[in-house]
Amino acid sequence: MRDYNKIEEYMLECMRDSAHDREHIYRVLYTALDIAESDADLEILTAACLLHDIGRPEQFANPKLCHAEVGSRKAYEFLIGIGWTEKRAAHVRDCVYTHRFRSDNPPRSIEAKILFDADKIDVSGAIGMARSLMYKGAVGEPLYTLNSDGTISDGSNTDEPSLFREYHFKLKNVYGKFFTERGREIALSRQKAAEDFYNALLSEVKGSEKRGRDRLKKLR
Amino acid sequence: MRDYNKIEEYMLECMRDSAHDREHIYRVLYTALDIAESDADLEILTAACLLHDIGRPEQFANPKLCHAEVGSRKAYEFLIGIGWTEKRAAHVRDCVYTHRFRSDNPPRSIEAKILFDADKIDVSGAIGMARSLMYKGAVGEPLYTLNSDGTISDGSNTDEPSLFREYHFKLKNVYGKFFTERGREIALSRQKAAEDFYNALLSEVKGSEKRGRDRLKKLR
Repeated sequence: MRDYNKIEEYMLECMRDSAHDREHIYRVLYTALDIAESDADLEILTAACLLHDIGRPEQFANPKLCHAEVGSRKAYEFLIGIGWTEKRAAHVRDCVYTHRFRSDNPPRSIEAKILFDADKIDVSGAIGMARSLMYKGAVGEPLYTLNSDGTISDGSNTDEPSLFREYHFKLKNVYGKFFTERGREIALSRQKAAEDFYNALLSEVKGSEKRGRDRLKKLR
Repeated sequence: MRDYNKIEEYMLECMRDSAHDREHIYRVLYTALDIAESDADLEILTAACLLHDIGRPEQFANPKLCHAEVGSRKAYEFLIGIGWTEKRAAHVRDCVYTHRFRSDNPPRSIEAKILFDADKIDVSGAIGMARSLMYKGAVGEPLYTLNSDGTISDGSNTDEPSLFREYHFKLKNVYGKFFTERGREIALSRQKAAEDFYNALLSEVKGSEKRGRDRLKKLR
């Protein structure tokens, strides 16, 4: 693949300010290449994986923008600029445009479906939990919030942002939304690790809460 | 315990800017009350738990300061100010002063030992992993770093900060350092959850790396 280095360099330039997001790009690329069967165009797929999040800085600066939309335009213009044909550049553009989950805009080509699945796999399993925790830390959201009686909420019954809420409303529900068999298989193989970690967290914080609160009540 | 509300209010005031650190305080308090046997003075212990991190803002503003040292002085002055005897205020001060792991400054009273153990328990298990991940996110450190050949480091052979490095050099080694039997028991009951999570993370990221890199090599 002649242009790999050029495309990688452009990706790194676009994501200069978020060093650890780069590893997400390589995980998605490696997972996509793992999913890809012989019918996928690996050059299209590789370019789409490398470029799928290049619209993130624009969305970060202006949350009204959609990084998939911005990124798809940037990807197309960049690829035309380095001499790709209109047809192949447009194919990559469409993969980037549809990688974000939106029911009105599903991925159509096999390469777009593989990118979609590979990106969703990075939200599954232990890695999905770890990425969410790092994000919560970065934006200052907590691990859990409290119920009105002061006890810890498991996240299922609250609107306040927290890791526990994110688990109930997003992370535990990603396992049904896959377009490829291999994608579904990888995600399912990771499901138990995410469940086990959430359950361990909940049992640790609820365990000491239960025993300690009873003693504190007697003391106060 | 007459002064619980006053002490809690002072703690919340000291930690105004770090909402999610407050839940750490209550976890430590509840765990300490779980550990405490009949020979512990629960008022001393409760005050020490609530106040153990009140020196954090000063350390955050000036990293040369030690929050245990600053916090112990603040705690003493506050308790004297609300009418505690010199002896009991000094007892709480000493608990706060020795809660941080430093071999030259071990906890001496049973209350100091219980606070030390309860604070360390919040570094063990799934909760220890989750807190570290949130901290990494807040300061912009990554999940893992790369070896010189571009492969993912498991954290055991690097000086670069990352969650994987933190696991090898800190999180997996906290289980031997306890002063109370119940403290050790709680920490050990959580050890497997931390190990399982680290191993799941490593296997997820190394698994897709292995399969994807081989395919990418052929492609390039």
